[in-house]
Amino acid sequence: MRLIVVGFGNVGRSLLSVMTEQARDLDERFGVEPKIVAVLDSKGGAVDSKGLNMRELLETETRERTVAATPKVGQFGLTPLSVIGDVEADIVLELTPTNPVNGEPGISHIEKAIRNGKHVVTTNKSPPALAMRRLQRMASQNKVLFRFSGTVGGGTPILEFTKKTSEADEVQSLRAILNGTTNYILTQMHDPNISMDEALSQAQRLGYAEKDYSLDVNGIDPALKLTIIANYALEREISFKDIRITGIADIRLEDVQNHKRERRKIKLICSIDDELSVAPVPVEAAQPICVDGSLNSVQLRTKYIGETTLVGPGAGGLQTATAILSDLLYIHQTRSQGNEA
Amino acid sequence: MRLIVVGFGNVGRSLLSVMTEQARDLDERFGVEPKIVAVLDSKGGAVDSKGLNMRELLETETRERTVAATPKVGQFGLTPLSVIGDVEADIVLELTPTNPVNGEPGISHIEKAIRNGKHVVTTNKSPPALAMRRLQRMASQNKVLFRFSGTVGGGTPILEFTKKTSEADEVQSLRAILNGTTNYILTQMHDPNISMDEALSQAQRLGYAEKDYSLDVNGIDPALKLTIIANYALEREISFKDIRITGIADIRLEDVQNHKRERRKIKLICSIDDELSVAPVPVEAAQPICVDGSLNSVQLRTKYIGETTLVGPGAGGLQTATAILSDLLYIHQTRSQGNEA
Repeated sequence: MRLIVVGFGNVGRSLLSVMTEQARDLDERFGVEPKIVAVLDSKGGAVDSKGLNMRELLETETRERTVAATPKVGQFGLTPLSVIGDVEADIVLELTPTNPVNGEPGISHIEKAIRNGKHVVTTNKSPPALAMRRLQRMASQNKVLFRFSGTVGGGTPILEFTKKTSEADEVQSLRAILNGTTNYILTQMHDPNISMDEALSQAQRLGYAEKDYSLDVNGIDPALKLTIIANYALEREISFKDIRITGIADIRLEDVQNHKRERRKIKLICSIDDELSVAPVPVEAAQPICVDGSLNSVQLRTKYIGETTLVGPGAGGLQTATAILSDLLYIHQTRSQGNEA
Repeated sequence: MRLIVVGFGNVGRSLLSVMTEQARDLDERFGVEPKIVAVLDSKGGAVDSKGLNMRELLETETRERTVAATPKVGQFGLTPLSVIGDVEADIVLELTPTNPVNGEPGISHIEKAIRNGKHVVTTNKSPPALAMRRLQRMASQNKVLFRFSGTVGGGTPILEFTKKTSEADEVQSLRAILNGTTNYILTQMHDPNISMDEALSQAQRLGYAEKDYSLDVNGIDPALKLTIIANYALEREISFKDIRITGIADIRLEDVQNHKRERRKIKLICSIDDELSVAPVPVEAAQPICVDGSLNSVQLRTKYIGETTLVGPGAGGLQTATAILSDLLYIHQTRSQGNEA
C-alpha cells in the first residue's frame, strides 16, 4: 500500500508515529504494509519509490521545519499537484488545513488524485463539506474510493456510527456537540470566576484552540462537520449554506450561571430535524449528549431503535491518525473483497 | 434475497413488521428485496418458494399461535433441519431462544445452514458465545458469512463499534452495562421504598424481564454477551468459562442507598482488561457509562483515542430487528463487492 502524504502538520506527524508503532500489528492482522512514497509540506517534499524512512522524516521535520530538507530524498519547491500526478502510489492522504471559503488547495489535490486513479483519504473538512457529491461521483467514475472519517469527531467514529444506524433504521433527528474548543470554553464558564476571554486563553494554552479560533467561536467548524454528516451519513442533499449558524460570542457568564442553577448547561448544539442549525442551546445536564470539556457527542433519535448516543474526544493528532488508519483498512478490505471474487 | 426464518417469537414478528414497512426503502436505496421463503416455529412451518405473504403470516400467528396454520402454505410438524436442508434460500435467520447449557438447537441449525452453503444471521447468543471460532471456520470453508449483531445491545451497534475501534487502535480495556433487566432493577432501587423483589416485578410487568429471569439476575446473560464481544470484536481467544461472574442477587437496598449518598451507583459491570468479569460495582454517577433504566452502554479505553462511550437501548424486538437488517445489508454489500470485481 503505497501512500502519498500531502500536508505534514500535527496529524501527519501523528500518523507516522502511529504507523511506525503499529507496523507489525497492521501486517500480521490485516496484511497491510503501508509504504510512504512521498511527503509534501508547504516548502517542498521528499520522494522515494522504495518507501521513505519514517523516523528520518520525523527527525528532519522536527529539526528543519520541513521534510524538503531530508538528506538525499528531499527537494525544496516540489508541489503536491506534480507529485500526485507523477509518483506511482495507491492512495493520497490529503491532510492540508481546512479552508471554508473555497476548499482550496484541498479540492484540487483530491481531484488530481482521483483523475490519476488514486484512492483518497482526507482529514480536511472543506472538500467533503463543500464538494462531496461532485468528488464522490468523480471517484466512482474513476473506480477509486474517497474517505474522510477523520473530518468529524477525530477518532470517535461519529460518521460511521450515524451512517450504519441510518442504513438499518430511519434517523428522525440528530443532535450533536461537534466542536471541542467551544465546548471547553462553555464548560470552563461554569466557574463563575472564568469569563469567556479567560476560558479562550486557557483553550489556546492547552492546544485546543488554534491561533485563529474564529472558525470555532463563530460556529463555522461545527457547521462544516454537520454538512458532512448530513450528506454522507444521512444521505441528505444539503449545502453548507442551508445551515442556520449562531456562534457562542454573545453568551454571557451570567447566562451560563443562570442555567447552571436549573441543572442545564449551554452547549453549542448542531441539530438536524426539519431544519439544520448550529446554535447555543440549554441542555439538561443529565442527558447523555451533555458532555463536558473538549469531548464531542452525537445523539440519534430513530424510528425503531429509539435514542443512541456516542461520546468521545473530538480532535487530536493521534486520535485523527486512527481515523486515517481506519479509512486505509476500509480501502484495503474493500479492494481485497473485490479481488477475491 | 431469499430468507428462511427459524424461530418466530417477538424478534421474528418485529422483523417482519419492519421489513414490510421498509420494503420500498430497502429496494430503492440498496437494491435489496427480501423474500421470506420459509418460517418455522415450535409447531411447524410455512414454505413458499415464491415468497410468503408477510401480513398473512403475522395474522395467522396472532390468531392461531403458530405459522403452521397458515392457509395452503402452512404445515404442522415441519422441522427446521429439514427445511434448512431442502428449501433453496440465500440466508438462514436463526432466531431461537438462547440456551446457555449447550447452545442447542441453535448450533445445529447454524451448522446445517452453513454446510448447505447458506449465510447465517442469528440473534441467539449461545452459538456465537459457545462456538464462535468453530462456526466462523466452518463458514469461511463454505464461503458463507456468519453474522450476529443482534446478540449484543439490541439495535445499539456495540459489536461493530468495538470491532472498528479495535482494528484502528489498541483497546486496552472495556467496561460495559450489557443487561437491561438488571440495570432497570438497580436503577429502581435508588428509590428507598423499592426492594429488589418489587423492582423485579416491575421489570416483568414492563416486559424487560423474562418469566425465567435467572439468566439476567445471575449475570449469565451479560457474560454470554461479553464472551461474544471479546472473541469477535477484540479477537481474544476466551471461553465463557474464563469469566468470573457475580450476579446482583446479594445487593441490598441499603448498599444502593449508601452509594447514592456518595454520588455513585451500583451497576452490573462487564469488564475486560487483564481479566474478564461480570460483577456489581459502584460507578461514579457522572461517568458517561453510568446509564439508568434499561439502557446499555460500553466504554472503551484505547491507546490513541482515549475513552469513547456508546449508549443505547439494549434489547427490544424492533431494535433487534434493525440489527438483523444491518447484517442482511452487510451480507448484500459484501457479496456485491465480490461480484463487481
